[in-house]
Amino acid sequence: MNIVTARTKTKNYPVYIGENLLSDTAIFKPHLTNNRVIIVSSELIAKLHLELLCKTLEGYSVETILIEAGEQHKNLASIEKIIGMLAQQQHDRFSTLISLGGGVIGDLTGFAASVFMRGLNLIHVPTTLLAQVDACIGGKTGFNHLGIKNMIGTFYQPTSVVIDSTLLKTLPQREYLSGLAEVLKYGMACDAGFFCWLEEHAEALKRKDSTVLQIAIQRCCEIKLNIVYEDETDHAQRAVLNFGHTFAHALESATNFSHYLHGEAVAIGMLHATWLGVKLGLVPQVLWDRLAILLQSLGLPSKYDRQLCSTFMLYSYILNDKKKNSRQLSLILPCALGKVKVFKDFDRQYLERLMEEYAIT
Amino acid sequence: MNIVTARTKTKNYPVYIGENLLSDTAIFKPHLTNNRVIIVSSELIAKLHLELLCKTLEGYSVETILIEAGEQHKNLASIEKIIGMLAQQQHDRFSTLISLGGGVIGDLTGFAASVFMRGLNLIHVPTTLLAQVDACIGGKTGFNHLGIKNMIGTFYQPTSVVIDSTLLKTLPQREYLSGLAEVLKYGMACDAGFFCWLEEHAEALKRKDSTVLQIAIQRCCEIKLNIVYEDETDHAQRAVLNFGHTFAHALESATNFSHYLHGEAVAIGMLHATWLGVKLGLVPQVLWDRLAILLQSLGLPSKYDRQLCSTFMLYSYILNDKKKNSRQLSLILPCALGKVKVFKDFDRQYLERLMEEYAIT
Repeated sequence: MNIVTARTKTKNYPVYIGENLLSDTAIFKPHLTNNRVIIVSSELIAKLHLELLCKTLEGYSVETILIEAGEQHKNLASIEKIIGMLAQQQHDRFSTLISLGGGVIGDLTGFAASVFMRGLNLIHVPTTLLAQVDACIGGKTGFNHLGIKNMIGTFYQPTSVVIDSTLLKTLPQREYLSGLAEVLKYGMACDAGFFCWLEEHAEALKRKDSTVLQIAIQRCCEIKLNIVYEDETDHAQRAVLNFGHTFAHALESATNFSHYLHGEAVAIGMLHATWLGVKLGLVPQVLWDRLAILLQSLGLPSKYDRQLCSTFMLYSYILNDKKKNSRQLSLILPCALGKVKVFKDFDRQYLERLMEEYAIT
Repeated sequence: MNIVTARTKTKNYPVYIGENLLSDTAIFKPHLTNNRVIIVSSELIAKLHLELLCKTLEGYSVETILIEAGEQHKNLASIEKIIGMLAQQQHDRFSTLISLGGGVIGDLTGFAASVFMRGLNLIHVPTTLLAQVDACIGGKTGFNHLGIKNMIGTFYQPTSVVIDSTLLKTLPQREYLSGLAEVLKYGMACDAGFFCWLEEHAEALKRKDSTVLQIAIQRCCEIKLNIVYEDETDHAQRAVLNFGHTFAHALESATNFSHYLHGEAVAIGMLHATWLGVKLGLVPQVLWDRLAILLQSLGLPSKYDRQLCSTFMLYSYILNDKKKNSRQLSLILPCALGKVKVFKDFDRQYLERLMEEYAIT
């Protein structure tokens, strides 16, 4: 097992990465403030892993709250369910909430923990690769409201994150690969050496080789935590982590979040951003080639289905994207392997011309 | 005008204290991130002060959200109203929320600011003495839910607090005096010199003498901000600020929050805690005498109406108080003038004996 220390302005905490951590009482014990623990999970994940976690926490008073899985349940109703249960069981701010699940469970549990009695003790146990390398790292919590993704949320750091790579064995392969797209993102956006390493270990990663996987997860956590330390509340450096995400969000929205998994959309989005980078003379064509080859060797998509949505539709989503810094259009584009930059003040007409060109590629 | 700097782990910000600050554009301008401002207020306060604030913010795009005043509206419905308006007007996280009102408006606005898009820019303009010396200082936000006071809340610091003592001129005298009880609390709990100063200036304070009032407000803010700096998330030192509040909360709850203003309950609560301190041999009788005299000279109550609620009822509220650290009974008692301590592990029987004794005093 390895430990990465998450440093934040207000506190430091450990991120444990290894095999069979879910059964290791010694990992959880130091982070429990009293004997009351509430595990928040989904029905599916609970079936797979809850029994083991409860056994690990033997001797503690453990309650369970099950939330419906899926982005459509990342809403106020789920938050009210969690908070209603906490109130009903008369929990105070010394109880511990443990999220056991993917990004949606982590975001909901994190939000509930951040606002109940102004803050409960929180431990994340992410069960998807996406949550292990991204969603449960960095302290963002939230839920969708009035049709806007993550409209309500907080920045709230857990007291520890327990990343058990064994849990990925039960993760469906398509979901696992979708998580790998975010792993590639760290290479493309922040670490050229890591990208090369991923190229070398693509095959091992694809078949969930345990050693390679743990190294990859650890590197992603280190990269993200370093950036979060510099910019906890997402006002500057953290933007680079959105590489590929502007296009991905457009693609997800345009297809009603029902066709592409998040990582798949990010894969396509990264390739699109790199295409723009090539067109603008920021990076050579070979970078696009390398990314496309790596995506292909991992079984990730590099093109979207133009029958589902037109390029025009995607661009109008992008141009209206809420992420625009006070309505100013900004794009995160590569400027070298392992390095991206936020480009602002785009000439709208030029962008539309590129859009037309992309539409016929 | 004086400026007290609030230091927190994540940022520092100014607390401006002076006369006629509401009309001073130069005070607000540096803290507005773009040209969009939303003022949250109540109908009553808006009638008194909104026009002036809007004039001060001329040139900015200013919207107003009016919330029903009073503790009973410090609820999810009010939060949904604020957030619904923010979403409807397509605000992003670069807009600024200004709270213009008392503690309830400040707590609601602060909470909405802390969770909308994971955090809006926030400025507090407290209009009651209680909010100026307590509620708007220190970053606590929240609302009541499922019958529990402040069940949902966050710690969220504003980018500035504008304390205009002129606004207190329109505050009803009873509400003003209620605020003075919290001022006395700072003397009793944290600063013997300040307590003596208050004894000397009681008459001037009672008639809202502007110079004396500003000195008092500034001292309260300094004391509270120093404590908050040490213990932002209320796990240790901040507890001393609850001096008198255990009994006060019991009294408020037992009388359905309809008979005593918060400060009046705190006045009675401080005197009760001091009585306990005398009984336990922690402080001499003369401290109780001085506090009683000061309360009287300010026109604050020192006894509660035993026709309204019995001492027995108050004690059962205290024994069940949710503030108990994981169900352990703790009381904040004086151990000298200007010094209080948290006492734990009370012998329940001994406390009940004291309760009986208090019941016949």
